[in-house]
Amino acid sequence: MSERYFQHTFPNGLTLLAEKMAGVQSAAMTLLVPAGVATDPVDRCGSANVLSDLVLRGAGDLDSRALTDYLDSLGLQRSSSAGVHHSRFGCAALASKVMTGLKTYSDIVRRPHLPESGFEAAQDLALQSLAGLDDEPRQKLLIKLREWHFPSPYSRNTMGVKQDIEKLTIDLMKVDHADRYKPKDSILAVAGNIEFGALKDEVEQHFGDWTGKPSDPVKVMPPPGRQHHEHQQSEQTHIGLAYPSIAETSDDYYVVRMATEVLSGGMSGRLFTEIREKRALVYNVWAGYSALKDQGSIMAYAGTSNDRAQATLDCLMVEIHKLSEGVTQAELDRAKIGLKASTIMQGESTSSRCGSIAHDFFVRGRIRTLEEVKNAIDAVTLDRVNAFLKKHLPGPFTIVTVGPKPLNLPQ
Amino acid sequence: MSERYFQHTFPNGLTLLAEKMAGVQSAAMTLLVPAGVATDPVDRCGSANVLSDLVLRGAGDLDSRALTDYLDSLGLQRSSSAGVHHSRFGCAALASKVMTGLKTYSDIVRRPHLPESGFEAAQDLALQSLAGLDDEPRQKLLIKLREWHFPSPYSRNTMGVKQDIEKLTIDLMKVDHADRYKPKDSILAVAGNIEFGALKDEVEQHFGDWTGKPSDPVKVMPPPGRQHHEHQQSEQTHIGLAYPSIAETSDDYYVVRMATEVLSGGMSGRLFTEIREKRALVYNVWAGYSALKDQGSIMAYAGTSNDRAQATLDCLMVEIHKLSEGVTQAELDRAKIGLKASTIMQGESTSSRCGSIAHDFFVRGRIRTLEEVKNAIDAVTLDRVNAFLKKHLPGPFTIVTVGPKPLNLPQ
Repeated sequence: MSERYFQHTFPNGLTLLAEKMAGVQSAAMTLLVPAGVATDPVDRCGSANVLSDLVLRGAGDLDSRALTDYLDSLGLQRSSSAGVHHSRFGCAALASKVMTGLKTYSDIVRRPHLPESGFEAAQDLALQSLAGLDDEPRQKLLIKLREWHFPSPYSRNTMGVKQDIEKLTIDLMKVDHADRYKPKDSILAVAGNIEFGALKDEVEQHFGDWTGKPSDPVKVMPPPGRQHHEHQQSEQTHIGLAYPSIAETSDDYYVVRMATEVLSGGMSGRLFTEIREKRALVYNVWAGYSALKDQGSIMAYAGTSNDRAQATLDCLMVEIHKLSEGVTQAELDRAKIGLKASTIMQGESTSSRCGSIAHDFFVRGRIRTLEEVKNAIDAVTLDRVNAFLKKHLPGPFTIVTVGPKPLNLPQ
Repeated sequence: MSERYFQHTFPNGLTLLAEKMAGVQSAAMTLLVPAGVATDPVDRCGSANVLSDLVLRGAGDLDSRALTDYLDSLGLQRSSSAGVHHSRFGCAALASKVMTGLKTYSDIVRRPHLPESGFEAAQDLALQSLAGLDDEPRQKLLIKLREWHFPSPYSRNTMGVKQDIEKLTIDLMKVDHADRYKPKDSILAVAGNIEFGALKDEVEQHFGDWTGKPSDPVKVMPPPGRQHHEHQQSEQTHIGLAYPSIAETSDDYYVVRMATEVLSGGMSGRLFTEIREKRALVYNVWAGYSALKDQGSIMAYAGTSNDRAQATLDCLMVEIHKLSEGVTQAELDRAKIGLKASTIMQGESTSSRCGSIAHDFFVRGRIRTLEEVKNAIDAVTLDRVNAFLKKHLPGPFTIVTVGPKPLNLPQ
């Protein structure tokens, strides 16, 4: 498609994306397989999470220890996680080492050993990370906010559910791996110092004959309600708030992003200046655009002491509603500059770019160039932003709190 | 010193460091002023923290709001914080915008308005962030570990002390600013798409006639003891452990770094494989080298459920002691590759590089090139690592726990 970008979907449904970056020695890879919490079996929520750990415990010719040692001997900085739609495996290193590692990643997703002993450890760790949430009330708040805001199963906690994880067995893991680790809807993205031809050959060799089952349709259910309080004894109250917005694919996407930047971008964002800097109500407050594949939302968070919690929620609502009165040209200009600057910075990071092109393909079916993003930001006018804000009043609101006592919620 | 690096100390004591990076459009800046928690007045611990917020609330010709708006209009992604030795102001954006912002940063450190109303908000926020620690037991553990391990005042919590922050006044802030915001021992580092000549001229123009008072000597006191338990009702116990090591300037620095990588680098590190992967005792465990200017330490952390806490601490001690029996060639090779890979990745980030060269100058009085770091890693041999580990047995240990009950500590 250009000298900088490359996109190819193999006959088995796997899509390869690549971006060539000048002036770097490194490369980064993101591999998405369509095993996310949203497609976890109904009463086995957490299966993708446990599986994303388990597949790394030996694959191909290498047992668990040998696999870890080998990937470390390539200098690969690695990460893996289960998300809403996908399980994600990522690595970054010298570009040639990332290329060498591709074969091993094909073993990990296609030929994992799934050992019994490794299963017990992976299950245990998943349960421990869930238990650890009690010491992370802010993270707990954000998980609960998603649960009460998004339709199920897209609202599920990507870590899973305790009772479900306890019911998992190694045999269920093997079935789940066979069902959901497959080329159709998988995305492999690489960014950095790479050659498209060599990359495509390497990926074809190791992933080209990968096969898999068709996917089951997902049954979608509305959230249980719009208001929820989670009791936690603490000096702090954590407040989360969400309301629907347009999808990422909408023509108005950057209109909404700009409005959200005015609310909470940079340090001149309204939430920061009004709630934190002027009134010192909170140490931490933000709002941002957050999307499922085809449903956008605005989400906001504030964490504060219990005695300021009600005032903080009230202020947050005031600022969000005030947005429909419009933004100023100066605010919009700053929002544009801020978003363009962060686009440029991310454009210099191989890890950031391979994540971005994978996300682009998942949401839009194609890579957006950095130039296209820049032009889309430039094209947003004050009239469009203010017309949009006037027409689309915020709400209905989902409001979730974590703390010692509930707050008075706006009706 | 080379085409890539630049170093210059102005007559007033400010040092300018720069690194020219190929293939980037951005630049990042780090400005360190010698106002860290270690030099906070004896019973005003937290003064540097409050001041690092307050100086941003209006400076030069711009009031608080105008200053924030202006810096956002340059697209500068900013951060500021008080550390042990310095207060740190950082920004990153298109290189030309970072250059433009230098004048404003000189206003911030030299001509802040220090307004009364801004002081109350900054003081309030500092107290809130301290109160928020109750919801962050892991962070609390790491703060307590420093307090019980390092000599005072280098062991202080950079956020300050509640009772001391409550006693601060705007007049004390003005005195403190005049005392500690000064060119001597300040470091300004820029990395990215820059020209040394233009940068030096710009810095000279805005910082060249900056003057300040001489520094008071710091009185150092030993830590209160080596073992501490902090009661917190929770399902989790957090364990921190530290013991002395060599300084960053030692010839053995990379020998120690390699040994620590074997213990806890990559995913094949011993703590990760033994305590997490094999025994599933913890979700999170790590060890790392951590240094004051001229005192190194090894610090380790594990967070786990209460019923596994004792076993986790015992295992952690076993692995640390076992290190003195030596590491294998394969372990050393992986450690070298891992550390070199992460050096290369960091070498591609403007923010990471300006932070690194500032740190280098502070600790060593000069910039280390990426080549020098790579060569130093390569020069470490298995014999040197194992001889060092045999000679320098780990200990004495500082052990701190946060959780519902104390553990049995090794004697």
